[in-house]
Amino acid sequence: MRIAILGYGVVGSAVAKALIENDKIIRARCGENIIPVIALARKNKKNALIPITTNIDEILQRDDIDVFVELMGGIEIPFQIVSQILKKKKPVVSANKAMLAYYRYELENLAKNLAFGYEASVGGGIPIIKILKEGLSANNILSIKGILNGTSNYILSAMNTKGIQFYDALKTAQELGYAEADPSFDIEGQDAAHKLLILASIAYGLRAKPEDILIEGISDITSEDMYFAKEFDFTIKLLGIAKTKNSKVELRVHPTMINKDKMIAKVDGVMNAVSITGDLLGENLYYGAGAGGMTTASAVISDLIDIARNEFKGPMLGFRNDFQFELLNKDEIFTKYYLRLKVEDKVGVLSKIAQLMSENGISIDSFLQKPKQDEIHSTLFFTTHSTFEKDIKNLLLILEKQDFIKGKPFMMRIEE
Amino acid sequence: MRIAILGYGVVGSAVAKALIENDKIIRARCGENIIPVIALARKNKKNALIPITTNIDEILQRDDIDVFVELMGGIEIPFQIVSQILKKKKPVVSANKAMLAYYRYELENLAKNLAFGYEASVGGGIPIIKILKEGLSANNILSIKGILNGTSNYILSAMNTKGIQFYDALKTAQELGYAEADPSFDIEGQDAAHKLLILASIAYGLRAKPEDILIEGISDITSEDMYFAKEFDFTIKLLGIAKTKNSKVELRVHPTMINKDKMIAKVDGVMNAVSITGDLLGENLYYGAGAGGMTTASAVISDLIDIARNEFKGPMLGFRNDFQFELLNKDEIFTKYYLRLKVEDKVGVLSKIAQLMSENGISIDSFLQKPKQDEIHSTLFFTTHSTFEKDIKNLLLILEKQDFIKGKPFMMRIEE
Ligand SMILES: NC(=O)c1ccc[n+]([C@@H]2O[C@H](COP(=O)([O-])OP(=O)(O)OC[C@H]3O[C@@H](n4cnc5c(N)ncnc54)[C@H](OP(=O)(O)O)[C@@H]3O)[C@@H](O)[C@H]2O)c1
Ligand SMILES: NC(=O)c1ccc[n+]([C@@H]2O[C@H](COP(=O)([O-])OP(=O)(O)OC[C@H]3O[C@@H](n4cnc5c(N)ncnc54)[C@H](OP(=O)(O)O)[C@@H]3O)[C@@H](O)[C@H]2O)c1
Repeated sequence: MRIAILGYGVVGSAVAKALIENDKIIRARCGENIIPVIALARKNKKNALIPITTNIDEILQRDDIDVFVELMGGIEIPFQIVSQILKKKKPVVSANKAMLAYYRYELENLAKNLAFGYEASVGGGIPIIKILKEGLSANNILSIKGILNGTSNYILSAMNTKGIQFYDALKTAQELGYAEADPSFDIEGQDAAHKLLILASIAYGLRAKPEDILIEGISDITSEDMYFAKEFDFTIKLLGIAKTKNSKVELRVHPTMINKDKMIAKVDGVMNAVSITGDLLGENLYYGAGAGGMTTASAVISDLIDIARNEFKGPMLGFRNDFQFELLNKDEIFTKYYLRLKVEDKVGVLSKIAQLMSENGISIDSFLQKPKQDEIHSTLFFTTHSTFEKDIKNLLLILEKQDFIKGKPFMMRIEE
Repeated sequence: MRIAILGYGVVGSAVAKALIENDKIIRARCGENIIPVIALARKNKKNALIPITTNIDEILQRDDIDVFVELMGGIEIPFQIVSQILKKKKPVVSANKAMLAYYRYELENLAKNLAFGYEASVGGGIPIIKILKEGLSANNILSIKGILNGTSNYILSAMNTKGIQFYDALKTAQELGYAEADPSFDIEGQDAAHKLLILASIAYGLRAKPEDILIEGISDITSEDMYFAKEFDFTIKLLGIAKTKNSKVELRVHPTMINKDKMIAKVDGVMNAVSITGDLLGENLYYGAGAGGMTTASAVISDLIDIARNEFKGPMLGFRNDFQFELLNKDEIFTKYYLRLKVEDKVGVLSKIAQLMSENGISIDSFLQKPKQDEIHSTLFFTTHSTFEKDIKNLLLILEKQDFIKGKPFMMRIEE
């Protein structure tokens, strides 16, 4: 089986290397050699393991390529190139979660029963696409909760274990190569949202795009939140959450307070993990490295081996018959909340806050006041009983307007 | 697709129930209805969801069955029945790890390119067979470490968290339905060994049988071992371990001291987990319930869905080309060890033990003496640097003969 690698960067070069180095096990697994014959890049490379071209047409015109592997990144350009390839009835493998977050249904339509592998798009080397599409196929999926971005998990773990602030943890992550120079995509939840959308299509046939769902990042989390979490036996994780509620699904990406005894709370550093609860199997959790050249190559090549084995049939997102949940309106999210408020330390403040909560139908589950930091300000922490997102949002607007509240009230959702 | 269920016990009845209750998602996944038409049992059942027969021939003679699901248990009888079915060129799904531990290569030969699904035989609802055979197919598997038996994990967790002795923990497990009336199969490591052998065939093409490998159970573990583990930041787990060493594989099932910060050390209660390290992906860990009717049905039905999708091709154990590791001789196992010795508390004992160790080429890594329990006896704990199994076994024989040693010296392997 002859393949072309479109994009010879971190992942593309690792795929070429792994195909060459692991050729014996790969041949044993699929009965064939998988040979990378050419790669695309913008600039030519010295010492590349396979011939490189900077001209995409040179690759697309060849008729000796059996499978095309898209590892360029971007959205529109790879979508156009992949569409062209599918129209020529050639199978595609891609690691491009951004493209899939926007164009997965268009791609499924184009691919029809052609193989389209995208195992590498979510969870790095964890075969989470296959697990969800095939391994758990007998289940109604009740929920998916994932640590889908290693950079943010590294930062939150470092804040938690070393007691440092967000920007210091980010700096360390950058120095260690765990965060990009521009980290916003990772820390603001976009990357995790792309992956969550892909998983939600496989579990629920959900057609949402990134704009449609609730996405919040971790940059507003402080060491005070970490302090509260420790006191109340929580761990803070950036989670991608999908959950069914009647015939709808809620999708959201945000920092989350979770009970520290949950398996997913124990996942530290740059690692990823996905917890899936099915109606038959209960909770399963899948854990591993979420990024890195060789890790991602492991997933890309598993798709290629499935194609060589001829075990890879459409439809790409896994449903043979019509099956489609709808997205729950954000306002209807119903969960517990954590609030951190900086207040003037004077008589009557606490009772005023309690009154505003009660007026908005929100009841307090726990309360903590942190020892005073300066002459006039205290930090108050609350957790609420389950309540609707719209009520909390409303409360936050009202609190912001009170003169005894300093700065912006901070809210985080709690998952049990 | 019409199926017959051979065995209508815990798993068989759950498969029938789940196929009926989850028919919508199953049809969406594979584009077909999967219909259980008849089941086999020894005694007839009242209120069964599908017709039951006690006559196997009545089922085997029918020509309207597309797939046969073996959920009887046992070894020889199901092997004979399944062989008959495969000779009639009908696909089979089975959850029977004992049969597979002995006859998987014979079954693979009979099945050739017929579908033979056995996802439910290891790890309950965790799709570990598919993960290893397909998801991680690009990797050379460096090691597999699994908590493969929920009963023993429940007992060890209870001993650890409640500070109780083995037999009390076992009694609780029996009361809760986590352990059989005769628990020996679970607590002596046989069940875990069957599962490890199946995984080792998929990872390494290893043809070993249960008799060939090192199997030790957990019934000799005491609260003193738990005490030592806590002091030295270990957790004790019954692990199935497969590890490559040059071109050989070591396979062993035994209670193991593992660093308490490892993900697999954090798996408590009746849960199962498998940690797999591949050369490309590093360590992945898969966690979930390892038994129970519905959990196991999840795996059985995922195989049926794969068959309906026509995505399930042979060979059953995953290798298209010849690929076969050999079993490492038990004596050549090379690891760290933990020793617990009850000794007479008199001058010179420690130096004598140290001398015997040194004479056997074993060097001490750490040492702990527990405060004296009675007038004359103390318990000594040692851990060693890495050493050969044959040297430790020899040391134990020598120690046993020393008059200052009371009772049988106890040894446990350490995994880092
Ligand atoms: N890195 C990971 O750990 C990881 C994990 C999972 C998924 N992914 C996904 O895998 C894909 C590749 O990631 P990566 O980290 O390997 O990226 P990368 O290191 O930036 O590599 C991208 C490669 O594509 C080439 N390329 C980009 N745009 C091109 C264009 N318009 N024409 C021709 N060549 C072009 C680049 O050429 P030059 O070399 O000349 O710049 C480079 O060789 C992305 O979709 C990413 O989201 C990555
Ligand atoms: N239970 C679990 O959680 C679990 C998990 C993974 C794998 N498994 C495997 O799944 C298989 C079934 O387990 P199970 O727990 O469901 O066992 P079970 O409850 O004992 O059920 C066995 C069924 O097979 C029938 N049967 C046994 N021998 C028979 C024979 N010679 N002729 C006709 N019928 C026969 C029994 O009939 P009667 O009802 O008349 O006695 C019963 O219906 C075993 O291989 C087990 O290792 C079980």
